[in-house]
Amino acid sequence: MPHAIATDYHWMAQAIQLARRGLYTTSPNPRVGCIILDKNGTLAGKGYHVEAGTAHAEVHALQEAGASSRGGTAYVTLEPCSHFGRTPPCANALIEAGVARVVVAMTDPNPNVSGSGIARLQEAGIEVISDVMAAQAAALNPGFIKRMMTGKPFVRVKLGVSLDGKIALANGVSQWITGPAARRDVQRFRAQSCAILTGSGTARADNPSLLVRPSEARFEDYPLHNIRQPVRVVVDSKQSLPAELQLFNDGKTTYVATTRQPAETESPSHVLSLPGKGGQVDLSALMERLGAMQLNEVWVEAGPGLAGALLQQGEVDELIVYQAPKLLGDNAISMVSLPAFDTLAEAVELRMTDSRRVGNDMRLQFAVSSRSEVD
Amino acid sequence: MPHAIATDYHWMAQAIQLARRGLYTTSPNPRVGCIILDKNGTLAGKGYHVEAGTAHAEVHALQEAGASSRGGTAYVTLEPCSHFGRTPPCANALIEAGVARVVVAMTDPNPNVSGSGIARLQEAGIEVISDVMAAQAAALNPGFIKRMMTGKPFVRVKLGVSLDGKIALANGVSQWITGPAARRDVQRFRAQSCAILTGSGTARADNPSLLVRPSEARFEDYPLHNIRQPVRVVVDSKQSLPAELQLFNDGKTTYVATTRQPAETESPSHVLSLPGKGGQVDLSALMERLGAMQLNEVWVEAGPGLAGALLQQGEVDELIVYQAPKLLGDNAISMVSLPAFDTLAEAVELRMTDSRRVGNDMRLQFAVSSRSEVD
Repeated sequence: MPHAIATDYHWMAQAIQLARRGLYTTSPNPRVGCIILDKNGTLAGKGYHVEAGTAHAEVHALQEAGASSRGGTAYVTLEPCSHFGRTPPCANALIEAGVARVVVAMTDPNPNVSGSGIARLQEAGIEVISDVMAAQAAALNPGFIKRMMTGKPFVRVKLGVSLDGKIALANGVSQWITGPAARRDVQRFRAQSCAILTGSGTARADNPSLLVRPSEARFEDYPLHNIRQPVRVVVDSKQSLPAELQLFNDGKTTYVATTRQPAETESPSHVLSLPGKGGQVDLSALMERLGAMQLNEVWVEAGPGLAGALLQQGEVDELIVYQAPKLLGDNAISMVSLPAFDTLAEAVELRMTDSRRVGNDMRLQFAVSSRSEVD
Repeated sequence: MPHAIATDYHWMAQAIQLARRGLYTTSPNPRVGCIILDKNGTLAGKGYHVEAGTAHAEVHALQEAGASSRGGTAYVTLEPCSHFGRTPPCANALIEAGVARVVVAMTDPNPNVSGSGIARLQEAGIEVISDVMAAQAAALNPGFIKRMMTGKPFVRVKLGVSLDGKIALANGVSQWITGPAARRDVQRFRAQSCAILTGSGTARADNPSLLVRPSEARFEDYPLHNIRQPVRVVVDSKQSLPAELQLFNDGKTTYVATTRQPAETESPSHVLSLPGKGGQVDLSALMERLGAMQLNEVWVEAGPGLAGALLQQGEVDELIVYQAPKLLGDNAISMVSLPAFDTLAEAVELRMTDSRRVGNDMRLQFAVSSRSEVD
C-alpha cells in the first residue's frame, strides 16, 4: 500500500473537524467528514454527514467539487461504504466522480464489511491510503465503533461529587454540589448521547427530565431550535415507578428496563423486558438490547447503586467526574456502591484521560479498565 | 515613596529563587534571599539565609560584593531586620556598606517590628522601595508569616485517597492507595515542615516513622547527608499509646499532645499538656503551643478523625490531596469525619490553588476558607 504524504495529515485533520459538526445529529450513523482536492491539490469540496437517511459526507463533498474531483484526492474520516443502505454506496460515487486517490482515516469497524469499500475503490484503479489519523477519527465515534464490534453501546457514567466523593448529604440533599459551568457541560454530553440512562432511585428522588436544555448548553455549531433529544432509559427492575414522573409525561421517549413482562395497557413510555440477575435487571442484557436499538452512546446519570453495579459488571467504558471543591464528610452518601473488598487489588482501576477546570469544579475523565465480575 | 523600575522585578525574582535554597533549613527563621548590584547595575553579590544562628542573606551578599556595594542597589525578599538577635541587624550592615538603594519584596510580618528596618534605612538617606513581588515573596514563608501575625503555625493537611475519597478499605488496608511518585512528593513537604502532626489512631495502626526519607525525596539543592528532621507531634488525648512505637524509639524528637499532666518519669518523648475540649485535646490551644515552640509549618498526616476535627475547628490553612485513579466503594473509609450536615451551605468550602499529575495520581491543592466552628 502506498504511503501517506505530509499534506495528507493537514487535510485529514480538517475532515475530522468537519465530521465533528455532526456530533449531535448523525446517530445511529457515525460522524464522518470528507474533503476533496482537485488534481492540482487545491480544495474543491467539503462535506459532512448530518443526519441518518440523508446524504453521506462524500456525496456532499463531491457535489461541491463537481467536475473538479476528476483526478483529485478525497479525504474521508471513515472507509467509504460499499453497500446500498438508505443511500447508494459512497465507494461507487467516488469511482464515478473519477477521483484518483482516496485517503481514509480508519476502516469500517463492522467486521462484516470492513475493507470492502477500500477493495472496491482499489479494483477501480484508485490509489487508497488508510490509517491516517486513525485514533483521532476513532474518537469521533466511540459508540458507533463499539456497537459495530460488540453489539453494545459506549457507556459513559457521569458523577457530580464533592472532593471527598460524596453525591449527597445523609438527608439526601444534593442540589447543587457542582456549579453552573459543570451543569452546562453536562448538557453537551447529553446532547451527543443517544440515550440517557438512570435508575429508579434517582427518577423517584429527583423526578428529573434528563432532556437536553439547549439554553444551558450554548452549542456553537448547532441548530438549537430543533435539537435531537436522546431517549431516556430508566432501570426499574420491579417496574414500581409512579406514572406521574416528568419522564413519562413530557411527550418524549422513555423506556423502562424491567424484569417484568409488559402489561396489556402500558403508559406512553416503552417497556424493555429483560432477564434478571439477583433480582435486578441483567445489565449486560440491557446493554445488548440498547445496542440492538441502534443506540451508540449511553450517558448514565444515576445514583451509587446503578453506577456501582455497571462498574462492577464491566459495563462502563468511561467515567466522567465533576468534582466540587468542598467536603461533605463521612456521613454523606458515597458516589459508588461496591462490595466490601478484602484487598486493594480488587478496587476498580481507572486510567485518567483528561482533567480540566470547569468553573470552580474539576472535570476528571477516566477510561475504565476491563473488569471481570467479582462473584 | 519612589517607584520600582522594570529591572527591579528581574532581580527580585532572582532573589526569591535564592531564598528557596533555604526551603529545608532556615526554620524557625524565614527563607530570605538577597542580591547586590554595584553602582553600574552589574551583579556584585548574592546570598541567602541557610540556618538560624548563622549569617542572614544580606550579610552573605554584602560579603560577596565587598567594596562594589558602595552606591549600589540591594534586593531583599524580606524587610531587613533592625534589631540585634543572634546576629547584628542587617539594616546596619547595608548602611555601613554604603548601599544607595534597597528594594524590599515585603515588610516584616511581625507587627511589632514591621517597617522599622525600612525606617532605619531611610533615616540613613537610602532610597527604599517596598512591595515588589510581595505575593511571591510571601509564598516563601507561609508559616513564618502566619506565626508572626497570629502566633499559630501554617497547617497543611495531606490526604492520600481514591477517586471516591476513601483512605482505606473497610478492613483497614490502606497501603498503598497512591503511587510511589506521590509518596516521594510527600517527602518534600515533610522536609520543609517544622513539625509532622498525626493522631493516636494512625500512630497505633501504622506505627509510622514520619521522618524524611532522603533517599525517596531526591532533593536537587539540598545536602542529603545531614537532613534537618522535623519534630513529630502525636495527638493522644488520653496518652494511651504504647511506648514501643517507632516514633518513641528512633532517637528523634516526638511530642505527645495530651490532656493529661505529665508523669514524673516520661519516655524519651516530650509531653505537651493541653486544655481539653469535649474530651479531646483543644486543637486551637495545640496550635498556639506549637507556634510558641517556633514551629512555622505543620504537616498533618492523620486519619479522618483528626483531619476532620482540624478542618471543622478552622485550624487548617491548606489541604493537599493525592488522588489515585481507583474506586474503593461505599464500604471503604471516608477521608474526613465531619458532623452530619443538614444543608450544603454547611459543607467545608475549599478553593483550588493548584492541580497536577504526580505519577498516576493527581495532586490537588486547596486553600481552606476560614470557618467559624459549627457548635
